[in-house]
Amino acid sequence: MTLPGFTGSLLDRADEARHDEAVVGAMRADPDALLLDMDGLHPIGAEQGALGWTRLRHVTIETELALLGTIEGTPRFVALQPGVSAVRRTPELFAAITALPASDAGTYATARSLVDWHARHGFCANCGTATLVFRAGWGRACPACHAQHFPRVDPVVIMLAQHGRGADARIVVGRQPAFPPGRYSALAGFLEPGESIEEAVARELKEEAGVTVHSVRYLASQPWPFPSQLMIACIGLTDDDALTIDRTELEEAFWVTRTEVAAALAHEPGARFLPPPPYAIAHTLLSRWLTEA
Amino acid sequence: MTLPGFTGSLLDRADEARHDEAVVGAMRADPDALLLDMDGLHPIGAEQGALGWTRLRHVTIETELALLGTIEGTPRFVALQPGVSAVRRTPELFAAITALPASDAGTYATARSLVDWHARHGFCANCGTATLVFRAGWGRACPACHAQHFPRVDPVVIMLAQHGRGADARIVVGRQPAFPPGRYSALAGFLEPGESIEEAVARELKEEAGVTVHSVRYLASQPWPFPSQLMIACIGLTDDDALTIDRTELEEAFWVTRTEVAAALAHEPGARFLPPPPYAIAHTLLSRWLTEA
Repeated sequence: MTLPGFTGSLLDRADEARHDEAVVGAMRADPDALLLDMDGLHPIGAEQGALGWTRLRHVTIETELALLGTIEGTPRFVALQPGVSAVRRTPELFAAITALPASDAGTYATARSLVDWHARHGFCANCGTATLVFRAGWGRACPACHAQHFPRVDPVVIMLAQHGRGADARIVVGRQPAFPPGRYSALAGFLEPGESIEEAVARELKEEAGVTVHSVRYLASQPWPFPSQLMIACIGLTDDDALTIDRTELEEAFWVTRTEVAAALAHEPGARFLPPPPYAIAHTLLSRWLTEA
Repeated sequence: MTLPGFTGSLLDRADEARHDEAVVGAMRADPDALLLDMDGLHPIGAEQGALGWTRLRHVTIETELALLGTIEGTPRFVALQPGVSAVRRTPELFAAITALPASDAGTYATARSLVDWHARHGFCANCGTATLVFRAGWGRACPACHAQHFPRVDPVVIMLAQHGRGADARIVVGRQPAFPPGRYSALAGFLEPGESIEEAVARELKEEAGVTVHSVRYLASQPWPFPSQLMIACIGLTDDDALTIDRTELEEAFWVTRTEVAAALAHEPGARFLPPPPYAIAHTLLSRWLTEA
């Protein structure tokens, strides 16, 4: 069974250390301590197949550091970059991620989400005052109103609606206007306050494709660091294959068979659509649907 | 199968309407439009077994409104309260929630999380400027840097570690110091950036109880509006029943058998522990473990 992309990081997050400045100080002073090589939000050297790390003692640090945790006992840090650009995705970045082993991609996801969150959350949402980093980079505290702020993780449901069973089963795939030409994927949307996962899945499928599902089943999850989502992959069943496509969200959507999904995942010439990339959980979802559902 | 608490709201969130001021204006002008009766964050009258609603045209509105959606075609709003108290939980509140049907509790959860988020997020985290409500109450926009901010939903994993199988199976329950006397529940913790659900479950069980789990399985989810969590309930298996309790998180934790869990859920005299309340997903988790796992 293939693990979803960005999972399998070898990081021990050492959460308890974050609360103790002396412990964090000792980790930072460790002669073996490592700093993640980043150019803005880009993982330097990742296209060669591994994250790059530099000994902390060999670099001059001009910004604050966040403690990522330890790998094989060695402390790992990333530099916070208050002015880092919010450029979210480039072909170079996705080539680099594709080249990384899953464990390194997971470590990068953690670092990227954290650095990006700090860059866009320098002020207190409660009172507007500039905040200060605390807990070794895992929060920001307000010196004025004393509110504490923690990195966001935004849950997103990503799902297939399935019509029919067995060999006759079909699922809905759709494409957003920003997708590369030919690519189709699972539908997705942000879960809102006051919803369960199952309710968000049903709502999004209704809104985007006009499909009513029941028997929603959870399949897998992954972090998605653009900027910091938790992708929650599900399948729901429907008894009605009529589609009403919300054109503000989707450029197109249609039903596909098992044979068509298999052809797409195999990148066969003449396949009806191009699949999502392997590191996206939509790819995991389509693969598992073929084998498990 | 019992649905988790706070799920089953009859709200149609009418997401598409939020983007169209004319549509929201028409809903607000609807003579049947209703406003949720709230005293701060308390649902007025809920202890009588239903949420209270007042016709919008009968009240003087001095604050902004958020569009909750429609129920049975009737628009439903809640008043935003910039200065609302952050008192989080009172016995009166939990009595009221217990009295509500699940569908009303779910609608209340949505309203409460939204009102509370606005009250604590009046300023732009990116630049410190006071922000303005937009999208019919489902976001805040910064007039200075144009950043858009959306209500937070914080994913939390809540889980059982199971040792042994069948009739010999046992699970870990623990108590936080703030729990009512005698109450034990599933362990829980916030999911962090860069983690999957399965990874967060394994990390939290390791941190809080020293238990290493494999084969993590998703069971159910619920919204938890204190202030705005998504509770994700799972079970993991372990081959080692040694416990190393993190006393900064837990006052106590121990293994319990099926018989002990059944006695607790039935509130039998002499039961080894008092269970979590029925509207908490930990209750759902324990109940389903008895019948399904």
